[in-house]
Amino acid sequence: MTNSYTNSLKFIVLIISLLVGLTSCKTNPVKLITESENSKPVKNIILMIGDGMGPSYITAYRQFMDDPETPQIEQTEFDKILTGSVATDPLNKNDEYGRITDSAASATAYATGHKVLSRSLSITSEGKKLKTVLEQAKSNGLSTGLIVTSLLTDATPAAFIAHHPSRYEYSKISDYYLDNHDEQGQLMFDVILGGGREYFVREDRNLMVELTKKGFTTIKDKTDLLTNQDSKIVGLFAQRQLNKFWDRDEKTPSLAEMTVSAIKVLSQNKKGFFLMVEASQIDWAGHRNNIVGVMSEMQDFELALIEALKFANEDGETQIILTADHETGGLSLGTRYDDKNKYHWKSKVIKLFNKTPEEIVKRAQYSNDLLAEFKRASNLILSKEQEESLRSFKFVKEIENKIISKISAREKRKNSNKQRNQAIELITDIVNRHTNTGWTTKSHTAVDVNLYAFGPKSNELRGHFDNTKIGQFIFELLGGN
Amino acid sequence: MTNSYTNSLKFIVLIISLLVGLTSCKTNPVKLITESENSKPVKNIILMIGDGMGPSYITAYRQFMDDPETPQIEQTEFDKILTGSVATDPLNKNDEYGRITDSAASATAYATGHKVLSRSLSITSEGKKLKTVLEQAKSNGLSTGLIVTSLLTDATPAAFIAHHPSRYEYSKISDYYLDNHDEQGQLMFDVILGGGREYFVREDRNLMVELTKKGFTTIKDKTDLLTNQDSKIVGLFAQRQLNKFWDRDEKTPSLAEMTVSAIKVLSQNKKGFFLMVEASQIDWAGHRNNIVGVMSEMQDFELALIEALKFANEDGETQIILTADHETGGLSLGTRYDDKNKYHWKSKVIKLFNKTPEEIVKRAQYSNDLLAEFKRASNLILSKEQEESLRSFKFVKEIENKIISKISAREKRKNSNKQRNQAIELITDIVNRHTNTGWTTKSHTAVDVNLYAFGPKSNELRGHFDNTKIGQFIFELLGGN
Repeated sequence: MTNSYTNSLKFIVLIISLLVGLTSCKTNPVKLITESENSKPVKNIILMIGDGMGPSYITAYRQFMDDPETPQIEQTEFDKILTGSVATDPLNKNDEYGRITDSAASATAYATGHKVLSRSLSITSEGKKLKTVLEQAKSNGLSTGLIVTSLLTDATPAAFIAHHPSRYEYSKISDYYLDNHDEQGQLMFDVILGGGREYFVREDRNLMVELTKKGFTTIKDKTDLLTNQDSKIVGLFAQRQLNKFWDRDEKTPSLAEMTVSAIKVLSQNKKGFFLMVEASQIDWAGHRNNIVGVMSEMQDFELALIEALKFANEDGETQIILTADHETGGLSLGTRYDDKNKYHWKSKVIKLFNKTPEEIVKRAQYSNDLLAEFKRASNLILSKEQEESLRSFKFVKEIENKIISKISAREKRKNSNKQRNQAIELITDIVNRHTNTGWTTKSHTAVDVNLYAFGPKSNELRGHFDNTKIGQFIFELLGGN
Repeated sequence: MTNSYTNSLKFIVLIISLLVGLTSCKTNPVKLITESENSKPVKNIILMIGDGMGPSYITAYRQFMDDPETPQIEQTEFDKILTGSVATDPLNKNDEYGRITDSAASATAYATGHKVLSRSLSITSEGKKLKTVLEQAKSNGLSTGLIVTSLLTDATPAAFIAHHPSRYEYSKISDYYLDNHDEQGQLMFDVILGGGREYFVREDRNLMVELTKKGFTTIKDKTDLLTNQDSKIVGLFAQRQLNKFWDRDEKTPSLAEMTVSAIKVLSQNKKGFFLMVEASQIDWAGHRNNIVGVMSEMQDFELALIEALKFANEDGETQIILTADHETGGLSLGTRYDDKNKYHWKSKVIKLFNKTPEEIVKRAQYSNDLLAEFKRASNLILSKEQEESLRSFKFVKEIENKIISKISAREKRKNSNKQRNQAIELITDIVNRHTNTGWTTKSHTAVDVNLYAFGPKSNELRGHFDNTKIGQFIFELLGGN
């Protein structure tokens, strides 16, 4: 009884701190100067990509962040700088994969101004390397950086540094970080922050040692990052992706902290800088049809945008471009369950979570009590059937696995992943039903994405554009292709 | 053999004429003057509403209209004038129906600049009538008009002329067309065109006779409309809604023809005019998850937009505002059938239709051969199961109905509608699977809609807005509230 009371108290404290956190982001908006007040040239470029962030994600986030005490639904920081939309189709529109892009082709459009086939990273189907805006910025003498919350070898950051026909060859992609250099041996970046250590420290090659030799400082954790004084930094905060924003431990920085720290380093260069910031896991949560995860990652992204806006607003010579590479999941706010149409999207339900389903399941893999872990992370009142479905879910543990069969380690990992996915799906399905969140797929869709801009040249981004125009626009800002 | 050969030939001719039709809309775009070239004041206002037209509808239509012979996907006329997006939530955001609007509340936001409860037409929950932009325009001495492809008593047009707590009381709403007048007995409109004759010519009241007495000319059909020289016209081209654009007979005008004719009448007024044009059935097709119907109605809408743009471009004093009232259906382009993610939205499939599923089913109600009617209207190659599902579908005909039971006329109509809906659903399901079109609901969603503008004050519509801002903006153009 006392224990349950303490837990309830803890939960209330958590919720309050979460709400205070949310409120604090809403009550400290940046007071932006208008474009007409700013006719300065562009020195710095910050390209921010919300992977998978379709238009419905923006409405969802606005309704989620809404302050219930006011009569109106408040605008997000995104809303304040909306300028248009972007079509995301990749190369060869008449082919099977020619209408719905993957992240490689769409990131290539932003990185090079060219359409390529899905899976290709800044390279044509004939093998011709396409120059990237990161390379152009570096050859102009600017400082450059890439920030992600997934692996630095993932398609979006990779399209800026690598030229490779397959986004899936992670080791080869990580090699580009060292092997893509100019004639003087100068690398293409000054700052890289994110995840993917597993591909930088390999048996066959240790890129971290090589980076140290090249004068890079290794950033181990958040404290390191926030106190850094060096001008070339690499921070890999996870073997693979970072935990989701709501699940991250105290040692791991937020996207906002990475953005602030990167800007601090890069803005030392008087010639200016190019920085790409990706909220990578909005897409990952979309692939899982996980609206709680989507909200976690969009909050990480909005807080990073606020930091970028603060800098750009004071600086006056910084152009922010924010968009997505494609929509993921066919997300919609309103659905049909039990053969009934629902006219109410219940964003409030998501506020009952202090961790995302992935963290709940990760914890349950230890405790093997999915229901208890769910209740630790959420105050949502479940139906009897839902409660029973979580209670009865049991992981087949490693040790039992060994006894019952002598399957290979790979097979065990596969089984373990399968079980993990099933458990996450149990939870996401419950949340989708409680919120009336609809999804049509676990992959991408063709739907246009929104375009946002702040800075001296934002007027040129007003309207509807093909995704290649964004890359071409950045090249124009950099004064050449 | 000869017959089938002739049919194939006929079909090819139909497809070619359809394609030529499509191409002709694409190859004759309006060359628009830019805003910077135009600093004239606003005299005329054309508000165009694509009911239910969410952002995914725009991407779908662009991909559908695409010319496969070119390497890029061409922009639509919508794309060329995109300025931002609109949040559509109705009054009382913390209530059950406070996040997803219906067409009454959203049309009221555009018509009055105020949020109301769903189902309410320009009236508060306390019964206070909210002045509409139509009424303001009329009291300013402007000419005014309402054009729809559904019933003139439907929520969207009704919100401009009626003040009523329930959108569903069609007879009461139609009365407003006559009973809403100023002290001199002047009605609020000069032009009304669309459907809904059933509520204008009733047993208890004949509004058409009353309109004639008020000096209105009755427009019977397309020829009447295109040759009209009178300054006050009413055209009701169907008992209820007009047929869908692709299904319309030669006597029934397109939305473009209604728009041109209305502008011709209204622009005689030197003080200017206000015109609302609604592509009403984009939403109806969305409710049925009917992507073929959506494309038909969006084409009707784009062709009307082209006419409005032509006028506004030459005139220089006309402000066009185009948006939607909400998203319908949770449409997405990419889905998951048979447990497989589909990365290819096949817009080409829709080009194989020369009629929409509703017309196919209407014809089958006579022939009782759904498969044959499907094949007359579409060249789509069906799977054996799909072919069998259409072949085996049989309407229980009226006469058989009489024999098997003595059910009431109402019951019979209900059964007939139910069967009709089942037949339409059979076809829409087939199309959704062949195109990989996804839907999450048969009702509305909360997703933001796009905003488009052309004319002197378009710059003021750049960015993200609450829907009430659109109504307030029109009042500002009219110089007062």
